[in-house]
Amino acid sequence: MLRNVACRLAPKPCHLNPRVIEAEYAVRGLIPSRADEIKADLAAGRGSYSFQSLVYCNIGNPQSLGQMPLTFYRQVMALVDAPFLLEDPEIVARLPVDAVARAREFLAEIGTGTGAYTESFGYRFARAAVAAHINQHSHHVGPAATVDDVCLTDGASTGVKVFLQVLIGGSSDAVMVPIPQYPLYSAQITLLGGVKVPYYLREAEGWGVQASDLAAAYDQCVAESDATPRIFVCINPGNPTGNVLERCVMEDVVRFCHERGMLLLADEVYQENVYDPRRQFVSFREVVLGMPEPYCVETMLVSLHSTSKGVIGECGRRGGYFCMTNLPGELRAQVTKLCSINLCANVNGQVMTALMCSPPREGDASYALYRREYDGIFTSLKERAALLARELATVRGLSCQPVEGAMYAFSTITLPARYGARNEELNAKEGRQLALDARWALELLESSGVVVVPGSGFGQAAGTLHFRTTILPPLAQMERMVHAIREFQELLYKQYA
Amino acid sequence: MLRNVACRLAPKPCHLNPRVIEAEYAVRGLIPSRADEIKADLAAGRGSYSFQSLVYCNIGNPQSLGQMPLTFYRQVMALVDAPFLLEDPEIVARLPVDAVARAREFLAEIGTGTGAYTESFGYRFARAAVAAHINQHSHHVGPAATVDDVCLTDGASTGVKVFLQVLIGGSSDAVMVPIPQYPLYSAQITLLGGVKVPYYLREAEGWGVQASDLAAAYDQCVAESDATPRIFVCINPGNPTGNVLERCVMEDVVRFCHERGMLLLADEVYQENVYDPRRQFVSFREVVLGMPEPYCVETMLVSLHSTSKGVIGECGRRGGYFCMTNLPGELRAQVTKLCSINLCANVNGQVMTALMCSPPREGDASYALYRREYDGIFTSLKERAALLARELATVRGLSCQPVEGAMYAFSTITLPARYGARNEELNAKEGRQLALDARWALELLESSGVVVVPGSGFGQAAGTLHFRTTILPPLAQMERMVHAIREFQELLYKQYA
Repeated sequence: MLRNVACRLAPKPCHLNPRVIEAEYAVRGLIPSRADEIKADLAAGRGSYSFQSLVYCNIGNPQSLGQMPLTFYRQVMALVDAPFLLEDPEIVARLPVDAVARAREFLAEIGTGTGAYTESFGYRFARAAVAAHINQHSHHVGPAATVDDVCLTDGASTGVKVFLQVLIGGSSDAVMVPIPQYPLYSAQITLLGGVKVPYYLREAEGWGVQASDLAAAYDQCVAESDATPRIFVCINPGNPTGNVLERCVMEDVVRFCHERGMLLLADEVYQENVYDPRRQFVSFREVVLGMPEPYCVETMLVSLHSTSKGVIGECGRRGGYFCMTNLPGELRAQVTKLCSINLCANVNGQVMTALMCSPPREGDASYALYRREYDGIFTSLKERAALLARELATVRGLSCQPVEGAMYAFSTITLPARYGARNEELNAKEGRQLALDARWALELLESSGVVVVPGSGFGQAAGTLHFRTTILPPLAQMERMVHAIREFQELLYKQYA
Repeated sequence: MLRNVACRLAPKPCHLNPRVIEAEYAVRGLIPSRADEIKADLAAGRGSYSFQSLVYCNIGNPQSLGQMPLTFYRQVMALVDAPFLLEDPEIVARLPVDAVARAREFLAEIGTGTGAYTESFGYRFARAAVAAHINQHSHHVGPAATVDDVCLTDGASTGVKVFLQVLIGGSSDAVMVPIPQYPLYSAQITLLGGVKVPYYLREAEGWGVQASDLAAAYDQCVAESDATPRIFVCINPGNPTGNVLERCVMEDVVRFCHERGMLLLADEVYQENVYDPRRQFVSFREVVLGMPEPYCVETMLVSLHSTSKGVIGECGRRGGYFCMTNLPGELRAQVTKLCSINLCANVNGQVMTALMCSPPREGDASYALYRREYDGIFTSLKERAALLARELATVRGLSCQPVEGAMYAFSTITLPARYGARNEELNAKEGRQLALDARWALELLESSGVVVVPGSGFGQAAGTLHFRTTILPPLAQMERMVHAIREFQELLYKQYA
């Protein structure tokens, strides 16, 4: 029936939302797009490259680089989706008793099976599992989280979008974001027409937060614009920085947000990814509720988590949640409405979130395997984090803070001056404005197949250059990556010094 | 560690995005919220109601009302998520060979397993399955859909949001929507600050579209506002109307959109739900590509589909796709960027979408069961659609167009004048502005436990009243629903005539 005839594009220029045009998202921007082209070239035998494959270090996607899923979670999820398997005693006999029991328990709670929309906030039993997990890990005197405080989301991103949308109506509303930041925040602020107020993290102090910097950034916004900051974003452990905040600094942040009536949006998706033995993850919920009045009862806090990171690494599931602390009823009502417009988060993400919050316990049939898998992944992440920071520090022109947590190294690049001048010449010739670190990342990619994200995609202090790489490639690929960067830097210094 | 202490709400009034406050979503609005309260009352033995359970007719959520999933799809999905099951010959031996083969095929395509983020547009193999399905069902001369035309989404809603966001930047941009409409459209337009331009469907003509109405609505918008319509929304088969469009009318719509440079957003999520033997679903893609130049090569079309409706009814999966026809490159580029900010659709929705587009074929081991399950569900939906429209037509004060397709009946309500006067008195007393059909639906709910959505939530011609009910309750519940509505109407006519 079909013939392939040429398809002309619509000739008229298309009217587009200028905010969409303006929005940027470097993690899947120019460099990864070019990487995909090269990958297609390699697959098709096109082009001439000095490498046979790419090393993707641009995105925190552990299972794409060989990390294995935790078996128990997948067993339960498969049984919940295919409950007829539970009716076959032969199949049941071949699976761990606790996985079978857990699947039956979840199915009894779900009632109508995973083919139905859930409540707007998600399965009640899954929210109860999240609330119990939060309460178990919070060491404070104060109210316990309840199912009504928890909403299940499609990854943490959906939670970010809901709260930015509810509070940011346009150019009179601002959001304080760390620099460097995860670019989802800047993209959403742009899409909502809001104002981004950067507060700079102190690289020399391990990318720490300094309370005086926050006040200065806030005051500057109020003095120089018509916008009022409504939300304060804190990413802890830090993406892309790897910093893990200390409790005293977190208390400074809470007081700062409370005094200015800002909602504190705590992006805690890397809460399990703390590698430095001198550091410990403390949730903002624990900090807020552990402070005296009025902070503990008035600070508006939204805590975000996800199934994508940690040790579980279930990115494809798009599971996650937010937990609300001290939010006024009118705000909660609008959040509820927005979630109802979205109908509900996908159920597999919901089930995986419930599992993440209620893993096998000592004595359970699956505990030994779970422990072995979990510890194996965590130890390996920790080793790679240390190795990467150590190795990058030995490369000419690079310097990198310790990777205390999360999944990334964010390294400074120092380059010969002539490389910068050359970029300006090339930009003029190519008719574009490629940032110097984007040029560096592009040329690194094209010469070695290593995919990293330039620091300009996350924001950085004026006059500095960085790149972000994940700690996720297996050791052999990581060695190739470090080697490629080393060779590339040596070459640049030779050619342009 | 935790003590239950009273949690004071933050005292300061909270600044909120006015567009969020303004947005409405009736499908999960006042009536369903009240239903959830009643459900909680019933579960706790609180309150005094004349019924023991609710009949949920407010949302197209088939599997919440007992519809069973299609077995083959769940078998494959479970195996893809738990590939270790495929390594156990005993388990493999107990599953259909085609389900096992399909799971292996999908896993080979996926490569790294379902725990990883996919490309922004989704798994390539799943998009290929969608494209093949589209091409197989399109009878036209013209270009075949390719993997690059297809993007997998979290349900159809995400696709709607992407295109509204890309084209609607504020109050100078309008969207033409049918009245009555699915309220996701009006909610998103409000959130984006755009202008909603209603075009009224003709109830007396089975809720059909009339080309002259479209031109009048467009002209009125241009004459009376500063907004230019950018998008034309068409829901076919209709939600909430049940109307199935005829090809000649669809050609009128295409010409209308083409002449005005509007993008045609074709919501075709009910494409399998056509019950009237005199009607047949034809996709807008087939219509556009079947028309002469310039229409076939210039009309900008986005076609939406979902795993939530049809016969598959996998709402919880949040699977779906959009397919782009004749979109200019600059528009595609912005769509790609927006999708990349969202990272990717959840993988279970992607897998389910691929399965929906490549069901078992004659000769496959699972075909007989699949056929039996599919036909059983379809026949039952068809019977309930006919029964419901027939029964509602016999209720005093109601009249209902035939349910040609989709999953809803949208019935006119005629009420005694004194019931209207009473509503105004009650509104004054309660300090709210409840629409008359919302009052009706609320009192129906409180007296009988039947949950329907008032017509005012979808929009309706001035002076008319409606309600939407799904055709989804099992027969016994449907009988209870019709009986309750009949009794309620009789009572109203007795009390207020």
